[in-house]
Amino acid sequence: MVQDRAAAAVSEARQWARLMALAEIGGFAAGEDFGVNRPCLSVGDRAARRLMIGWAEAIGCSVSVDAAANLFFRREGRDPSLAPVLTGSHMDSQPEGGRFDGIWGVVAGLEALTALHDAGVVTRRAVELVAWTNEEGGRFRPGCTGSMPWAGHTALAAFAEVLDPDGIRYGDALAEQLALEADIPRRGLGAKGGITPHAYVEAHIEQGPILEAEGVDIGVVSGIQGSRWFTVTLSGATAHAGTAPLRGRLDAVQDMVRAVVALNALTADPSDTLRFTVARVEVSPNTSNSVANRVRFTIDLRHPDAAVLRAKGDAIEGVIRGAVTGCAVSIEENFHAMPVVFDPLVTGAVAASAAAEGLRQRALPSGAFHDAQFVVPVCPTGMIFVPSRGGISHNPAEYSSPAQLAAGARVLVRTLVTLAG
Amino acid sequence: MVQDRAAAAVSEARQWARLMALAEIGGFAAGEDFGVNRPCLSVGDRAARRLMIGWAEAIGCSVSVDAAANLFFRREGRDPSLAPVLTGSHMDSQPEGGRFDGIWGVVAGLEALTALHDAGVVTRRAVELVAWTNEEGGRFRPGCTGSMPWAGHTALAAFAEVLDPDGIRYGDALAEQLALEADIPRRGLGAKGGITPHAYVEAHIEQGPILEAEGVDIGVVSGIQGSRWFTVTLSGATAHAGTAPLRGRLDAVQDMVRAVVALNALTADPSDTLRFTVARVEVSPNTSNSVANRVRFTIDLRHPDAAVLRAKGDAIEGVIRGAVTGCAVSIEENFHAMPVVFDPLVTGAVAASAAAEGLRQRALPSGAFHDAQFVVPVCPTGMIFVPSRGGISHNPAEYSSPAQLAAGARVLVRTLVTLAG
Repeated sequence: MVQDRAAAAVSEARQWARLMALAEIGGFAAGEDFGVNRPCLSVGDRAARRLMIGWAEAIGCSVSVDAAANLFFRREGRDPSLAPVLTGSHMDSQPEGGRFDGIWGVVAGLEALTALHDAGVVTRRAVELVAWTNEEGGRFRPGCTGSMPWAGHTALAAFAEVLDPDGIRYGDALAEQLALEADIPRRGLGAKGGITPHAYVEAHIEQGPILEAEGVDIGVVSGIQGSRWFTVTLSGATAHAGTAPLRGRLDAVQDMVRAVVALNALTADPSDTLRFTVARVEVSPNTSNSVANRVRFTIDLRHPDAAVLRAKGDAIEGVIRGAVTGCAVSIEENFHAMPVVFDPLVTGAVAASAAAEGLRQRALPSGAFHDAQFVVPVCPTGMIFVPSRGGISHNPAEYSSPAQLAAGARVLVRTLVTLAG
Repeated sequence: MVQDRAAAAVSEARQWARLMALAEIGGFAAGEDFGVNRPCLSVGDRAARRLMIGWAEAIGCSVSVDAAANLFFRREGRDPSLAPVLTGSHMDSQPEGGRFDGIWGVVAGLEALTALHDAGVVTRRAVELVAWTNEEGGRFRPGCTGSMPWAGHTALAAFAEVLDPDGIRYGDALAEQLALEADIPRRGLGAKGGITPHAYVEAHIEQGPILEAEGVDIGVVSGIQGSRWFTVTLSGATAHAGTAPLRGRLDAVQDMVRAVVALNALTADPSDTLRFTVARVEVSPNTSNSVANRVRFTIDLRHPDAAVLRAKGDAIEGVIRGAVTGCAVSIEENFHAMPVVFDPLVTGAVAASAAAEGLRQRALPSGAFHDAQFVVPVCPTGMIFVPSRGGISHNPAEYSSPAQLAAGARVLVRTLVTLAG
């Protein structure tokens, strides 16, 4: 069978070597681990993309980029008029991230294309690999600013004014990237560009502990929990830390503490399913002896049940207003992705591929969001998970073994061949 | 009497015009107010110093600078061999500060020297005016890094490695300033330079509400409450905000919230005398969807009673260790200034000068610390306060009227003449 030939051509060593070569770009030692800090639209991002382009061109793929800087590699099929099968993930990392989150899905896609090339398999439909821009949101909030405009979820222009921590506009960083990649042929953005895929499948590390704990090789991802992101701004008044009596202060740090304590109560969940995280805090003027007049902090709220996500998210503003003692409160919702369920066309192909490989598999939902979440309304979509050691992710200790990743690549290439006919 | 002649030569309009000219350097509009952001050892700081130098040279003062970049203006006395009387304050501001904190004490000193010049008064002892470097600590922590080495409290080299928020070393910023002011004659640093003053008096805005509330014109400052500054570092582990169960997290933001709640309990004071402030918070990696693996925050603790300050400050570490749930705790004490009491030689001269001007006066302690705190062990020291509208300071709304400041300058010049003989 053609799937068997393609899967047999997957090289564990080649895939690992490419992954480690990419990890060197933005890589840093962290104790015994090796982390990656490769923000989107950075020098490192561009270097990583050039490395990928070289490998893809060597196996005869055509390369193109769209207005959102999403990077595409196309292996032509027997009938170029048919909608292609799309796979991919993202190449940007968290500021203190690991070597696998996102980038493995891109490298696995390249491994699949390379296996097809080496095995001489030509599918009926073209197979395309995409590296989505800025999935993480680590530099420019929110994430998925490549896949969202591609899918028609949000206009690209809506992100232009977003600033990174250095005050650089997303629009400017994107324009710079496109100018530096002007040698790469441009394609239209998403469905508007006439390239609506037949199906989309994304390979990714689990970033959670379930597969490892249960001794399972492959997660057939059933869907993605929903996410709501908020930015809260508390505005008080500066005052001299030595002279201003505590009673009259409008201390934004103290009101943030009150707000977080109240939000912890709102989001308390004995089942530990709900995810509530405050992880970005900016204080102004941020000098030790002047009472803070402004604190801005983020809330990341996730739950697989749309009703719970809606109710808890909608309650946030009232809870904060009830908790603070004097600061003015302003809350902005920056991102809202409802839970999604994946398509049986893709989940079935993934399950069959894992079975054909003789791997242990299970269905599970994704706790993290992924670009796949935004592709759902465009075409049948699914994901493949491989185990993450200790469930650790967004951390230099993130790890999946060469063998686990090779198994994932074999399942991916089988799935792509099945979907591409 | 010579004091009357000198006081009569004080010009309310000239002093106000100089103060407003200096406020333009680093000035910014803030609603109806006008704030100042003029960090020490900055372009703005140097521009402000050049403006002061021009005014001082025009009235025949000699100018010199020491290794800590403290800037001195000397009006010679009849007997140059005698120890001079010193006045002054600082020229740096908080990042979102006002037009009066610090800089008025320097401008008032210049107004006094100008009045002596215009009235043709020559004192027995020289009168020197100093602009101390970096009192605020807004850019380089702690503050008073000019007066501390001058007084022999701390070696200048001890501050060399302190970094500003942009990662610039204090030692480098200081060297740059001295290089750019190489045309100004150098003097030895403090007592080592052989210039131990006969007495020191510092004019300053109150930065508190008492004088205004009681309708008093002049505060005869009795002493300064003590301060202890700490930096707390909480180290946890990054994790994916969507996948990591809350139960196993080592979330540094959540542990900071727990620590601040516990510290609020430790420092609760029904009399509202104790000052406890957390005003600088730095979170890492500070991205909304990765659990924070490190939070660093400052504690500013002040009290007029040395025993209370010692007990509460010493309890901080235990309270934080008891409050956090998993993060490693590291605490550093960056600054420790015990309460001081001023000398009757100076407080008596200030009180007599205020009385001679027919002004309402009262004794009061200072809630803020000042360079004067470090001068206390070197020579008889005191301070003059003028009212602050609403007690507001470290804020663009900081305000004292031209008339209030002129009254302060008249008391200052009388005090200087009395002390200089």
